[in-house]
Amino acid sequence: MSENTITLTPPSGGRGAHVCLTPALLPLFNVEDYIVVVIDIFRATSSICYGIENGAEAIIPVSQVEECAAYREKGLDYLLAAERDGSVVDGFDFGNSPFSYTKEKVAGKTIVLTTTNGTHALHLSRSAKKIVIGSFLNLTALSNWLNTQNENVLLVCAGWKNNFNLEDTLFAGAVIEQLEDKGFLLDDAALAANDLFQVGKNDINGYLKKTSHGERLKKLGIEKDIEFCLQVDLTTAIPVLEGEKLVKLAVY
Amino acid sequence: MSENTITLTPPSGGRGAHVCLTPALLPLFNVEDYIVVVIDIFRATSSICYGIENGAEAIIPVSQVEECAAYREKGLDYLLAAERDGSVVDGFDFGNSPFSYTKEKVAGKTIVLTTTNGTHALHLSRSAKKIVIGSFLNLTALSNWLNTQNENVLLVCAGWKNNFNLEDTLFAGAVIEQLEDKGFLLDDAALAANDLFQVGKNDINGYLKKTSHGERLKKLGIEKDIEFCLQVDLTTAIPVLEGEKLVKLAVY
Repeated sequence: MSENTITLTPPSGGRGAHVCLTPALLPLFNVEDYIVVVIDIFRATSSICYGIENGAEAIIPVSQVEECAAYREKGLDYLLAAERDGSVVDGFDFGNSPFSYTKEKVAGKTIVLTTTNGTHALHLSRSAKKIVIGSFLNLTALSNWLNTQNENVLLVCAGWKNNFNLEDTLFAGAVIEQLEDKGFLLDDAALAANDLFQVGKNDINGYLKKTSHGERLKKLGIEKDIEFCLQVDLTTAIPVLEGEKLVKLAVY
Repeated sequence: MSENTITLTPPSGGRGAHVCLTPALLPLFNVEDYIVVVIDIFRATSSICYGIENGAEAIIPVSQVEECAAYREKGLDYLLAAERDGSVVDGFDFGNSPFSYTKEKVAGKTIVLTTTNGTHALHLSRSAKKIVIGSFLNLTALSNWLNTQNENVLLVCAGWKNNFNLEDTLFAGAVIEQLEDKGFLLDDAALAANDLFQVGKNDINGYLKKTSHGERLKKLGIEKDIEFCLQVDLTTAIPVLEGEKLVKLAVY
């Protein structure tokens, strides 16, 4: 695929803000040229933002329940989060609901979080200059920070099983809205994401109700989680990947 | 990737209309379950629609100039279309401009057309139930025909070097607009494409001017081609793939 790889050509003196609509498209980008923002709105990156905001020392994302369980065998005092089909897996501390990531539960703790799509996107982005985590919860704090960095930005939508989904794209558009007058060169996907956000922004929850994924999540009985994940600017912490752990970015 | 392949689950008694935003995402779909529409608005599928409308006996899409040239060596009376950087390659009959596909030039002829993105999308779709060609030129004729078929529809955007582009997605949205009240189940990409088309439909050319690809094409001096390719319903022929050749679909 290398001959087809898109070589980023930011405007002279400027930066590019690009959107990767699914992890399957990541090989098209020179990831090492970017700060990557990983986006998995329902619910991994929302829960991560909320947990880091509430004082979790670190969150370790893994893709398999078995990997998560392996941390217990290491004898570490970690909280383990894993669910299947909407229920907490037996023997684990909690599931993926953001309501599990309150101050009372997570302050000072390290959490191992099972998330398929989010972990996949993180893993494929590992050569980036920096990997941070985005969700509607930390939208403005994240966008403001991106504006202060003199770097190209790649918004990576975790999607669903490598395919496009609307909620992650809508959030990418929300970030682009906050970057667009700051001299970033936008690619077609960034333009599209922003236009979709403009269509949906006045009622994000209503807009997303028509999607297939929304239907799927509704069947899991997590409407309250969805509403929670669509709250804008509830938090200011920016989770950043250090080694295998997501920790709070020190913003100066 | 097979365990992640999306299994189409059309509603009982209904059909799915899905959008594949770039050929890189085609492995996610069970292509054999669909009628595939290949979309490469600037300019391959627009020129193909216009050429078939104007009586070309067949159009053979190839990806390399060398493959195109090889047809001459076969001693066949084919017209050869190839261009690089916006100019007709020496020794070829014409380039990719739709203005080359007039009745006077193509009626009764077979044309070998060099097109990178379009051929790539066609090749990856070859296990489909049927492969047809779409462009703004044949929008309504194509949509009406899709509505009469009792099949799932997959709109495959050829994109640009495997990445997303706005013009192909916008056209996919234009088709979805004509299918949406016909009982098709739409996926997230179809919903997004339709919403983007709603944003841009009143001035498609103006809307697309902001895109990177539009900039690139403008530099090639083909603004007139672009305007031509964005005309809606200039033609009614539906090109269909038979073997290696695109020919006029017999609609009953």
